[in-house]
Amino acid sequence: MILLDGKRLADQILSDLKAKVDPNNPPHLDIIVVGDNPASATYVKLKSKACQDIGIKTTLHPLDDTVDNSQVIDLIKKLNSTDTSGIMVQLPLPTHLDKYQILNSIDPTKDVDGLTATSLGLLFQGVETSFISASPLAVITLLDHYKIKFQGKHVVIVNNTPLVGLPLSALFNNRQATVTVCHKYTQDIKKITFTADILISAVGIKNYITADMIKNNTVVVGLGVSKDESGKMAGDLDFGHLSTLASHLTPNFGGIGPMTVACLLKNVINSHTHGLSKNPAL
Amino acid sequence: MILLDGKRLADQILSDLKAKVDPNNPPHLDIIVVGDNPASATYVKLKSKACQDIGIKTTLHPLDDTVDNSQVIDLIKKLNSTDTSGIMVQLPLPTHLDKYQILNSIDPTKDVDGLTATSLGLLFQGVETSFISASPLAVITLLDHYKIKFQGKHVVIVNNTPLVGLPLSALFNNRQATVTVCHKYTQDIKKITFTADILISAVGIKNYITADMIKNNTVVVGLGVSKDESGKMAGDLDFGHLSTLASHLTPNFGGIGPMTVACLLKNVINSHTHGLSKNPAL
Repeated sequence: MILLDGKRLADQILSDLKAKVDPNNPPHLDIIVVGDNPASATYVKLKSKACQDIGIKTTLHPLDDTVDNSQVIDLIKKLNSTDTSGIMVQLPLPTHLDKYQILNSIDPTKDVDGLTATSLGLLFQGVETSFISASPLAVITLLDHYKIKFQGKHVVIVNNTPLVGLPLSALFNNRQATVTVCHKYTQDIKKITFTADILISAVGIKNYITADMIKNNTVVVGLGVSKDESGKMAGDLDFGHLSTLASHLTPNFGGIGPMTVACLLKNVINSHTHGLSKNPAL
Repeated sequence: MILLDGKRLADQILSDLKAKVDPNNPPHLDIIVVGDNPASATYVKLKSKACQDIGIKTTLHPLDDTVDNSQVIDLIKKLNSTDTSGIMVQLPLPTHLDKYQILNSIDPTKDVDGLTATSLGLLFQGVETSFISASPLAVITLLDHYKIKFQGKHVVIVNNTPLVGLPLSALFNNRQATVTVCHKYTQDIKKITFTADILISAVGIKNYITADMIKNNTVVVGLGVSKDESGKMAGDLDFGHLSTLASHLTPNFGGIGPMTVACLLKNVINSHTHGLSKNPAL
């Protein structure tokens, strides 16, 4: 079994990115956070710290959880008109807000999180010069690094959200894989995962993917994160048992997590260096 | 076996639409055609005639096949700034043109063909107040009419294009189906189609879907059109043999074809009546 060592590749990407940053003309990322979700606070700190480490300036825009859609959108519109390299809205948003209306008000040329309808649609058109959402980009970048082949392979993705599973399905479809997208309504899911050549899980249930769900020599990637009974962070993969069957496997930590941060930063630096206003498809 | 009678439902939709048109304030559709592809000419005639029949005004914009991207885009930008109800570009375009750059220059609020990146992305976000591409909309509308249930069903789509298979996959995913998208690189496709509860084929090969590819009681929908050796139009479905196994089946003609025209016209009239500039997600 080959370990898909995301931490190692992420460190390499971050080091390459750092060399590209001109301290006299640093990239800039605006981060909007609504309310005080503790997980969001942790992620934002993590991203801000990673930006700082390689020389990207960040501005945090904390908003009270009583704001309405138009207040968030007004802020985004204001930021759209600045020369910032990228704007991101930390998810989840409080449920009274319209997530997509807010995300879609980000200028697609500053959408470094790749979550606007336009960025998502470009991906499904096969136009990968658009911004690609960081965690799907992390998965494909890591698999590419380990020279995994996609053409004609059956990829099964357990997650059907516009943030993770669906952009991933586009990336694999663009690479001529046959893609099945599963979720909580999927019936007899083991029967489907058992046919996978590549299995991607972003569920958020500890040890969700067990060894009896895969055939020999499957490539298995876990993105889901949850907390177990004792409050300890846990991943989707029953790593120990899977490691006897899988051809390639991500560790539950040090796999896609660090790669996701690296890919977000890569998007910010690409936006700053090349700009995406020249995106031929926009 | 229940015949999925698209012609009958399309006639009913067209008759309902006709009643909505105010002759003193008719909707208007701009159709751009590049070059002289005979199939395109046929489709454009068909659509124009259908528009005329229910009172939608059309303007045809024929462009020489030597035009470049910017000439087509300039025309689209000019039309974007008019008060037309909808703008569509007849496909295929000559290969020297950048299809997506051209399609993506249509104002999403006038994108009645639902082919811009923004419309496609909204669909994947589950925001179905956007324009939905006519043939995917035709499939889901027809299946809805026959009260086919989607939640937890396995839908297999043989077509992975941004125009047909991918928007269809979004529509079914939004309805909690498990979706597999197949294409010419798919290995052992029969093994996959055999697990389908609902099978959609948009391949363009005569009798591509045969009875040995499905299990009992599958819902089978054919969209593909081809010409056989004698130049006669043919569909994807081996209708005779499939009819002994399928629970529901489209005829090879009079199924999705007429529904697609009706759905395009429905988009034009919705655009004219309600406008989509108020689309909450845009």
